[in-house]
Amino acid sequence: MNKASDFVDEKRLWRRHVEMARFGATPRGGVNRQALSREDIDARALLLNWSNALGLRGAMDDIGNMFLRHPGTDPSAAPVLSGSHLDSQPTGGRFDGVYGVLAALEAVQAVKEAGIETRRSLEIVNWTNEEGSRFEQGCMGSQVWADPRKLEKMLALTDSQGVMVADALREVRQSLPKLEPRPLTFPVHALIEAHIEQGPVLEMTGTTIGIVTAMHGSRRFSIEVEGEEAHAGTMPAAARKDALFAAIDIVNALRKLFHDPRDVVRFTVGRFEVSPNALAVVPGRVLFTIDFRHPEERVLTELGDQVEAICGQWAAPCDVTVKETRRAACKTFEGFVPEAIARAAIDLNIPHMPIHSGAGHDARYVLDRYPAGMIFVPCEKGISHKENENATPSDLAAGARVLADALVALSS
Amino acid sequence: MNKASDFVDEKRLWRRHVEMARFGATPRGGVNRQALSREDIDARALLLNWSNALGLRGAMDDIGNMFLRHPGTDPSAAPVLSGSHLDSQPTGGRFDGVYGVLAALEAVQAVKEAGIETRRSLEIVNWTNEEGSRFEQGCMGSQVWADPRKLEKMLALTDSQGVMVADALREVRQSLPKLEPRPLTFPVHALIEAHIEQGPVLEMTGTTIGIVTAMHGSRRFSIEVEGEEAHAGTMPAAARKDALFAAIDIVNALRKLFHDPRDVVRFTVGRFEVSPNALAVVPGRVLFTIDFRHPEERVLTELGDQVEAICGQWAAPCDVTVKETRRAACKTFEGFVPEAIARAAIDLNIPHMPIHSGAGHDARYVLDRYPAGMIFVPCEKGISHKENENATPSDLAAGARVLADALVALSS
Repeated sequence: MNKASDFVDEKRLWRRHVEMARFGATPRGGVNRQALSREDIDARALLLNWSNALGLRGAMDDIGNMFLRHPGTDPSAAPVLSGSHLDSQPTGGRFDGVYGVLAALEAVQAVKEAGIETRRSLEIVNWTNEEGSRFEQGCMGSQVWADPRKLEKMLALTDSQGVMVADALREVRQSLPKLEPRPLTFPVHALIEAHIEQGPVLEMTGTTIGIVTAMHGSRRFSIEVEGEEAHAGTMPAAARKDALFAAIDIVNALRKLFHDPRDVVRFTVGRFEVSPNALAVVPGRVLFTIDFRHPEERVLTELGDQVEAICGQWAAPCDVTVKETRRAACKTFEGFVPEAIARAAIDLNIPHMPIHSGAGHDARYVLDRYPAGMIFVPCEKGISHKENENATPSDLAAGARVLADALVALSS
Repeated sequence: MNKASDFVDEKRLWRRHVEMARFGATPRGGVNRQALSREDIDARALLLNWSNALGLRGAMDDIGNMFLRHPGTDPSAAPVLSGSHLDSQPTGGRFDGVYGVLAALEAVQAVKEAGIETRRSLEIVNWTNEEGSRFEQGCMGSQVWADPRKLEKMLALTDSQGVMVADALREVRQSLPKLEPRPLTFPVHALIEAHIEQGPVLEMTGTTIGIVTAMHGSRRFSIEVEGEEAHAGTMPAAARKDALFAAIDIVNALRKLFHDPRDVVRFTVGRFEVSPNALAVVPGRVLFTIDFRHPEERVLTELGDQVEAICGQWAAPCDVTVKETRRAACKTFEGFVPEAIARAAIDLNIPHMPIHSGAGHDARYVLDRYPAGMIFVPCEKGISHKENENATPSDLAAGARVLADALVALSS
């Protein structure tokens, strides 16, 4: 029997990335293709064209997720899904999301060209609004797909111009009339999402394929330090309540708490805002955020629960208020899906390793209902969510080869 | 002979503060009376009315400084000046600046009511735009007065609406047609500026009068830390170039450098801006400022010259750029003017002490040409440039009493 991976075409896969990158192309070589925008619609239309040319049938559900179906021999068997998302960050790159969709397309095309008949259908999926930039709710499509009770709330969300998701979706539907309607949450045998790593581990270790074993759980905190504004020239140090210096002392104590010699903890202070932010005024107030991620719930609890006490300990002479704004559970990818990915990589003799995902992905929500797995491929210097995000044609093709063989195994 | 100080009227002085505070009054009890605004013109008009009622004649020079003259017996003798400014910060208080003008008015009125004839004329001065808020050049009026070569440049400055100083001044002149023209930089025998301390030293030490012996010199730096944006979930700590953490390390090293057990050094990081300032993005860039003040040039040089090296030492793995944006020399107030102030305080048996000014004041520019001194009175908790700036009627009156007797001594 032919192997699907032998029919993966590196050049075709790369060319499709180049063509997709035209929609929302930025002067600096990146992509601004936000969810349900004109650019997103154009990208969806091209995906549909390519799929139709392969004889796949397209469908769309109530939140705009697209499914492109290669039928199996047993119409009653639950399908195997693969895909990711076509939307991007406002200053995003050419690979985040789109790679997972194009790798799935390449894999399905390879399966067809290899003349392989699968028992289960294969479906390429494009989830709506993974990035949560234009409409501020990440993984919108996969969330609603996994839990349709969220549909109504999501349809009512608006972008900064006041446009509702529901209205933007109507435009998508009008632009793509050939798509059949599709219910949310149909039975699925397994899902594989391919994605660039968005971190430097594969590149640093010279590994081509990461098989995701866990998605980090996360806790987010918002911390407000309240001091007292004062004149920079007149107020002696001993009489100051400098909110910036107190915030710095707190952040440094937190850096110690979260320091991890194994470098598994992800601790980020991303927002840090000083008021009144004037050269000659001692800062009266600082607001900063903590984004803390880890693959183990035990560690999330143990370290995260110390945040408030540490803030209180180091705030003097200022006051501090700590709010936990979000907690997301850790997810484990295990069982026959990651096993099928590993088997494919072994058989293809492609260097691979287990890896954690510090970023969230649509697969996390599918995993709430059905078996799922993820394939990571390297990206240059681990850079993503930036216009200079990059990956090599051969790494992308290697991921598609592993994907193609794993999909065949899962759908047989 | 009567003593002028016996005729200082605490209630009248306080009432005038209350009346002035109506112009630009803010809901929180502060004042927004920016230079050459409608509110500033109203305040100038009221000052002129009060002065005219006392028989003083008003004049205005080309940069809008107002002079209200009580003639002495010798018209050829250089006058003694006293005053400060009527303009305020956008969220300023009821005392910063206006006290110095009203204390001078009170002192001159007391001299008149005491029936004292002075040989030299006494002139109340209201300097234009001390705060540098609307037009971003502090001590504009006193600077131009001391160095008329600066006039042209200052007249061309614009506010955020594009209004030029020259145009705003034309409106002031039209609103106050009774003011005679006055040349810039006429001979002056001495100047005394009374002001709230804007710091907590007098209050903390239970002292009513501060006799300013030095005005701090200052150095300002702008520091840019350049790291690399990265995904908060995926980038391991070891591979990050976190501009925030590098900036924090730099600031902490600078805090050590500037730490002064005697608490004379004023070291402030007032602006601190993080980019992209997003919760889930490792900061790629931080811009912060240093405002460093000290009464001794030697210390300004010694400590300030270490800033760049320390930044370079602590920036890794980020890059850092250090720019010195301003250096202002230290000023010493000595000789017969502060001596006259001290003598008046001693004779009145009012608790007084020598004090430094960490803030800049118009007197610094007058001092470049003529003998000058300053009287500080306490303000609540050292708070100023804020709407809750406060001072007591009795402290304000004590300052006016010392001022009145010192002016008599200097003008005799």
